[in-house]
Amino acid sequence: MKVNENYLKLEKNYLFIRIAEKIKAFQAEHPEKKIIRMGIGDVTQPLAPVVVEAMKKAADELAVKETFRGYEDSGAGYDFLRNAVSGYYKSFGADVPACDIRINDGAKSDCGNLVDIFDDSNIILITDPAYPVYVDSNLMNGRRIVYADSDETNGFCAMPSPDGYLLEDQKVYPDIIYLCSPNNPTGAVYTREQLSEWIAYAKAHNAVILFDAAYEAFIKDSSLPRSIYQLEGSKEVAIEMCSLSKTAGFTGVRCGYTVIPSELKTTASDGTEVSLAQLWNRREGSKFNGVSYPVQRAAEAVFTPEGQKQVRESILYYQKNAELIAGTLSELNIPFTGGINSPYIWFKCPFALDSWSFFDKMLHEIAVVGTPGAGFGKNGVNWFRLTAFGDNQETEEAMQRLRSMIK
Amino acid sequence: MKVNENYLKLEKNYLFIRIAEKIKAFQAEHPEKKIIRMGIGDVTQPLAPVVVEAMKKAADELAVKETFRGYEDSGAGYDFLRNAVSGYYKSFGADVPACDIRINDGAKSDCGNLVDIFDDSNIILITDPAYPVYVDSNLMNGRRIVYADSDETNGFCAMPSPDGYLLEDQKVYPDIIYLCSPNNPTGAVYTREQLSEWIAYAKAHNAVILFDAAYEAFIKDSSLPRSIYQLEGSKEVAIEMCSLSKTAGFTGVRCGYTVIPSELKTTASDGTEVSLAQLWNRREGSKFNGVSYPVQRAAEAVFTPEGQKQVRESILYYQKNAELIAGTLSELNIPFTGGINSPYIWFKCPFALDSWSFFDKMLHEIAVVGTPGAGFGKNGVNWFRLTAFGDNQETEEAMQRLRSMIK
Repeated sequence: MKVNENYLKLEKNYLFIRIAEKIKAFQAEHPEKKIIRMGIGDVTQPLAPVVVEAMKKAADELAVKETFRGYEDSGAGYDFLRNAVSGYYKSFGADVPACDIRINDGAKSDCGNLVDIFDDSNIILITDPAYPVYVDSNLMNGRRIVYADSDETNGFCAMPSPDGYLLEDQKVYPDIIYLCSPNNPTGAVYTREQLSEWIAYAKAHNAVILFDAAYEAFIKDSSLPRSIYQLEGSKEVAIEMCSLSKTAGFTGVRCGYTVIPSELKTTASDGTEVSLAQLWNRREGSKFNGVSYPVQRAAEAVFTPEGQKQVRESILYYQKNAELIAGTLSELNIPFTGGINSPYIWFKCPFALDSWSFFDKMLHEIAVVGTPGAGFGKNGVNWFRLTAFGDNQETEEAMQRLRSMIK
Repeated sequence: MKVNENYLKLEKNYLFIRIAEKIKAFQAEHPEKKIIRMGIGDVTQPLAPVVVEAMKKAADELAVKETFRGYEDSGAGYDFLRNAVSGYYKSFGADVPACDIRINDGAKSDCGNLVDIFDDSNIILITDPAYPVYVDSNLMNGRRIVYADSDETNGFCAMPSPDGYLLEDQKVYPDIIYLCSPNNPTGAVYTREQLSEWIAYAKAHNAVILFDAAYEAFIKDSSLPRSIYQLEGSKEVAIEMCSLSKTAGFTGVRCGYTVIPSELKTTASDGTEVSLAQLWNRREGSKFNGVSYPVQRAAEAVFTPEGQKQVRESILYYQKNAELIAGTLSELNIPFTGGINSPYIWFKCPFALDSWSFFDKMLHEIAVVGTPGAGFGKNGVNWFRLTAFGDNQETEEAMQRLRSMIK
C-alpha cells in the first residue's frame, strides 16, 4: 500500500513538546521553584453542578431496560440538545434553526473533518497567526494555503485583500476562508463591520467562510458579534463551529456543535445545486455515530437557566484573570491584544526579544510558562500568548513576578 | 469553492430509509399488528451496573476542582483504559501492548477516518456482502474498489484470489483489504487457517488488512480467532478495529479502540521507512481530541472481573436469541450462516424470493422486520439478515410466526 505522503511533509508538532522539555529541564535543575503554567488553553474550574447531575441521571437511564438508549437515529444530535443550542443562539440575537445544527464531540473534530467535503484544488486562506489545526488539516490533503497577515498594523484582525493573494507568483482568490473570533492565539475580536466585509468578500469570490466561534462566551461587549449569523448575508457563505470546551469547561467531556445553514449552497461542475449541509450529513453518516447520550444530556443542562447561571460563574472567574493580565500589561506599557473579550492575551515580547528567547527568560527568571507566538505563525515571532484559564491566586502571583522582571 | 464531487456519486443511503418507509406504511394500514423488529443491529439490554457506577463516579470527579480533568494529553486514551484493553486481549491469547492501542468514540469513526493516511491511488478490496461504510468511506476519496465474493460456495468467507482481481479489464492486486469476522451481515467467522492465508496474501502483495473485530465477543468456539493478532505475522500487515458497542452495549455511550502495531511499516517513495501508527497519531492529533473522560472510566469498568461477568450476561442473553433463530432455520431446512459465533444470522430467502420481496412478505404476512441482503452487496440479493439483539420473548414470538409462514 502507499501512504498519504502529504503527512510526511507536515512539520512535527514540536511546539508543546519543546515547551514541555524546557520545563522539565528547568524543574530538574531548580526543584525548589514553583512553576506557574499559563501556556496551554485548558480550563481548570470544575463542571457546573447541574451538568454533573444531568450526566449522572442519563447514566442511570442507561442502566434500565425501559429507558436504555442505543444508537442515536441520525447521529446529528438529539433534538433536545439541538433545540437548546438553537435557543442559546437566539439569546444573543442569532437565528439558527435546530435543523441546521449538528452536535459533535468538540470543535476540533469537525474543524479537521469538514475539509473532506471540499475538493483538494480549493485555495485555503488562513490568518497568520492561527490555530495550527487549520493549516495541518489542509496540508494533509495536499491543499495550497495563502496567509492573511494579522499584525500590529491591523490590531491582529486581518482584513480581506481586494487584490487577492500571491501564491506561487500568481494572484489568487481564496475558496475557503478560516476566521476565528475571539481569536486564538491573539484574543482579537472582529467587529460587525469587519465581519461584514469578510462576508461580502466571500460572496464576491464564491468562497465559504469556516468561522471558529469557540471563545464566543468570553465576549463582554454586546456590540461585538458572538456568532457570524448575527450578520446579514452570512448564511449563504458561512459555516460556524463552536464548542462547550471553554463555555462550560467541557475540554474533558467533549461536546461541540457545527452549523451549516440550509441556505449554504454551491453549484457542481454539472450545474446541479449542492447543499453543503447535505454533503456534511452524508460524510458524518458514514464516519461518525453521534455523541455519547450522557454527554448530550450534560450539554443540554448547560443551556438551562440554572446551567447558564452556573457556567457564567466560571467564565467570570477566568475573565477576572484576563483583566488582571491585561491590567498588568497596560501598567507595564507592553502592547497587547485580547484579555477583554477573550481568554487569551497576546503581547509583544519586552526587551525586543523573539518569542522563544522571551519564553526562556520568563521560565528562568520568574518560573512562569506561556506560549511563544512563533508556534502560531510568522507574525507571532515577537509575540507571546498567556491564557486566563488558570487559578486566580496563581495568576496574581504570576503578574507580580512579571512586574518584578520588567520593572 | 468547489465541493468534493466524489460525494455526489455516492448512492444515497436508501436501505434503512426504505425499510422505515415500508414499516410506516404497513403500520398505518394495520395499526392492530404488533411489528417485531429484527433489522437494525442495535442492542436492547441496559448497561452493566458497574459501568454505570464508574461513569457516575467519573462525573463526580469532574465536579470538584482537585479531581477535575480537562484535555487528555495525547488524545489516544488514558493509560488506565489502554492497559485494560491490552489485558483483555491477553485474556484470549493476543499480545497487544497498550502503546499500540488508541481509544476512540466507536469503530465507525476510525473505520471511516483511517483511510485518510493512505494515498488515493490504492486499490481497495472489500468482500461482498459487506458493511456499507467500507465502500462509502473509500468512494468519498475517489478510490477504486475490487470485490471478493462471499457466497454459498465458500460459506460466505471470501478467500484471496492468487490471480488477482479484475478492475477496468486489468488484473490488479489490492493494497488495502477490509475483513470483518464475525461478519456483518453474514455472521460467518474466519478460521485461523483462513485468516493466515489472508495474512500471507497481504504480505506477498505489500497490502494492509483493516480487520473489523466488532463482534469478537460473540465467538464461543475457542478455536476461532477473536483477534487477528492471535495469528503469526499479523502485526506486520494488520490494523484491527474493535468496539464496546456490541461487547458491552455501548451503542449510545460510544467507545471503541483501534490497534496499529509498531511493527506495521511501509516505505515511502523516497525510500524512508514510515510507521503507520505514527501517521495515524499525527492525523488524530490534528483532528481528534480524545474520548470523554467519564466514557473512558465506564469502558475501563467493562474490563474488570465484575464488569466482564456482568457484560457476559447480556451477551449470553443475545446468544440465546441467536441460537433460537439458528435452531428455527435448521428445523425449517433454510440454509444460513452465523448465529452460533455471531449475533447476526444470514439466511437464504425461502420461496426463491429476492430479498426485498421476502422483506415485504415477512412484513405483510407475519409483521416481522429484518434487513434485505441486497443492501449489503450483490451477493446478498437472495439473502436476509436477522439480528439477535432483540428481546427474548419477541424473538421467540417472531420465530413462531416465521414457522407459521414457512410451513
